[in-house]
Amino acid sequence: MNTVPTLQDIRAAAERIAPYAHLTPVLTSESLNKMVGAELFFKCENFQKVGAFKFRGACNAVFSLSEAQAKCGVATHSSGNHAAALALAAKLRGISATIVMPSTAPNIKKAAVAGYGGKIIFCEPTLQAREDTLAAVVAETSAEVVHPYNDYRVIAGQGTAALELMSAVPDLDIVMSPVGGGGLLSGTAIATKSLSPSTLVVGAEPAGADDAFRSMRTGELVPSVHPKTIADGLLTSLGDKTFPLIQSLVSEIVTASEDAIIAAMRHTWERMKIIIEPSCAVPFATLLEKKFKFEGKRIGIILTGGNVDLDRLPWLRD
Amino acid sequence: MNTVPTLQDIRAAAERIAPYAHLTPVLTSESLNKMVGAELFFKCENFQKVGAFKFRGACNAVFSLSEAQAKCGVATHSSGNHAAALALAAKLRGISATIVMPSTAPNIKKAAVAGYGGKIIFCEPTLQAREDTLAAVVAETSAEVVHPYNDYRVIAGQGTAALELMSAVPDLDIVMSPVGGGGLLSGTAIATKSLSPSTLVVGAEPAGADDAFRSMRTGELVPSVHPKTIADGLLTSLGDKTFPLIQSLVSEIVTASEDAIIAAMRHTWERMKIIIEPSCAVPFATLLEKKFKFEGKRIGIILTGGNVDLDRLPWLRD
Repeated sequence: MNTVPTLQDIRAAAERIAPYAHLTPVLTSESLNKMVGAELFFKCENFQKVGAFKFRGACNAVFSLSEAQAKCGVATHSSGNHAAALALAAKLRGISATIVMPSTAPNIKKAAVAGYGGKIIFCEPTLQAREDTLAAVVAETSAEVVHPYNDYRVIAGQGTAALELMSAVPDLDIVMSPVGGGGLLSGTAIATKSLSPSTLVVGAEPAGADDAFRSMRTGELVPSVHPKTIADGLLTSLGDKTFPLIQSLVSEIVTASEDAIIAAMRHTWERMKIIIEPSCAVPFATLLEKKFKFEGKRIGIILTGGNVDLDRLPWLRD
Repeated sequence: MNTVPTLQDIRAAAERIAPYAHLTPVLTSESLNKMVGAELFFKCENFQKVGAFKFRGACNAVFSLSEAQAKCGVATHSSGNHAAALALAAKLRGISATIVMPSTAPNIKKAAVAGYGGKIIFCEPTLQAREDTLAAVVAETSAEVVHPYNDYRVIAGQGTAALELMSAVPDLDIVMSPVGGGGLLSGTAIATKSLSPSTLVVGAEPAGADDAFRSMRTGELVPSVHPKTIADGLLTSLGDKTFPLIQSLVSEIVTASEDAIIAAMRHTWERMKIIIEPSCAVPFATLLEKKFKFEGKRIGIILTGGNVDLDRLPWLRD
């Protein structure tokens, strides 16, 4: 798939992944609504297979492959949830998955990939090292690379979460998702704006990894340099496929402080009784910090994942 | 209500509390199913108002009162969730609630009661002190006592969770709930056996607070002496209203070790991405320990609550 996904592509992805992915619930919380003065609808991708929305994009990519392509397996580099997602999707199709992973990835995410039968190759935690190692894997295996976000098949797959959200909750004023590499935000924006042009799409980013915020402001793709945030799923920078989509369809990128991210995560655990990972708390964190005008609005928020190392909770660290 | 509740009473309770209580979802998890070799259906009362099933019974009791009774308010003694539940139910009816609470109750539960406008009176953490203090409150206020479990209005209210579970998931072989004072287990047993006589009802109890297990075995009400368990909602002993119901309707009481309770709690957090409190993990813990014959069965489990002090997780204690 070499062209920008349309609503039709997202619908096709939804059909393709339906036998494998969960139709996740949309939950609400009066307490959280009161905290920020808006009506929030949380699309619970923390309940998705592998505990993250990433399964949607990986599954769409894997099941889009021709038989000939599939035979050589798939490969990727990923800091976490995409790795587990691709490993599971490949297992479901009965093909091999090789995952290049930074040695610093959380243990829980390494264990997940191994548990789904993925072959892990560790590398240094830099983009350069990840790309070089992946290139070597591809040279050896001819595996199809499924990039975590800069891939139209993945973007179409991620868009299926917003498709389900819009169908479950009509008349949303705003739809929000976190933004790391921008795959989810791009897919979300295509689905949302196609179905409801008047609904605003807002991306939420940690202030400590604000490349999307700066890229939108300057109009040029500005990569992250030494990003630092507890939201470890959002360390990556936008790609050349996601940036133009975000530029044309997303109203605003807003940022959240580390303290607000941790507070948002804890409020969600305490009040909603659901487990979300730090990356996933960023949109609600921007609401706590009142980073844009949203009072009284109906806001859909994609809760992206629930993979947390329960031995290392952010509010219990020194 | 001075007679043993029937299915009709539970249906009336369901109608009475419907405007105030959540219809909670039933969730499943392939990972947990695989762990124990059975098909599990979790009724998520951790998502209930005040974060626990206790709201059902308290709400039914409060809205069953005549206007004359209601005028004097309600009072109770409770180690936690029932206290918050009664405070909220009273607030919703616009009447006062006085809560006698052991000084050792978790902070999160004290804060919840105060947040709902309940008046807290602290006492020593013994049953005698709780009952004496409550008697003094009643002498002063003529408040209607709503006992946490040994009260037919409360038992009927708690039975509404099983009513919803049975309606959402037909053909359950077994329905399980934790057992502390036995209000939930009694209501669950009445609803379950009335709707499906062939379905077995099993109560799950911490081995460190196994009065129900011993009472069933000896045929006599044996109160807990110095119960000790992390499952702080299950420290209480059966009452004279709950014990006969459990004797006649419950197939078996099974117990779980502290290690299994903590493991069950953690597995549920990690795999289902939902927050449950230790008391709530006891049924699944007995499955992990294979305490009775259930392999291959369809088992409904009432997840009773999600009120956990996030600063003190059991797997992070010294």
